[in-house]
Amino acid sequence: MDFTKLDGLIPAVVQDETSNEVLMVGFMNEEAWRLTRERGFVTFYSRTRQTLWMKGETSGNRLLVRQVMLDCDEDTLLIKVRREGDGNVCHLNRVSCFVTYIENAEVGERR
Amino acid sequence: MDFTKLDGLIPAVVQDETSNEVLMVGFMNEEAWRLTRERGFVTFYSRTRQTLWMKGETSGNRLLVRQVMLDCDEDTLLIKVRREGDGNVCHLNRVSCFVTYIENAEVGERR
Repeated sequence: MDFTKLDGLIPAVVQDETSNEVLMVGFMNEEAWRLTRERGFVTFYSRTRQTLWMKGETSGNRLLVRQVMLDCDEDTLLIKVRREGDGNVCHLNRVSCFVTYIENAEVGERR
Repeated sequence: MDFTKLDGLIPAVVQDETSNEVLMVGFMNEEAWRLTRERGFVTFYSRTRQTLWMKGETSGNRLLVRQVMLDCDEDTLLIKVRREGDGNVCHLNRVSCFVTYIENAEVGERR
């Protein structure tokens, strides 16, 4: 895996194993990736807080790793998970962090 | 949208509008995002080549923008697309760039 392109970080896309909904994107350094595999729960490196954090460690809304895929450039992970706790991944109490629909972006609709 | 966290770039997750399969992750700077909206086809900024590129511009395998969602931190995009051309997004002639299954990662399976 190539951690060099973003100063030691790679993006990890988290997807619900059942609905295939994209839940969030976080970043992992090598230690976060090691801990994710070791514990079986998604663990990120927070760029703003500059620390490791297991998603849901305090809230209970952990992300149980079910399947991991690496992309063809070997610089991005796709992690299929089972949502634990109340199932809300976003801190805004939503299932997914992708909450804001961007108007005027669906150019394809107008064709 | 917050382009400051990665030196002017944000990750964009591309998802098939029908199957919900995650196809690839690329990066956009502000100009790539502007062009994506203007043209209606996903346009990235290549970190390795340091240039803008419309995905599929030469191959015909363009990604027609159908819906765009922004995440709660306003630093990541989720773009639902319709695949054009032969429908293979990956340069390895696969639908998705996430091609490598990582063994021993599915810790959840062993619980």
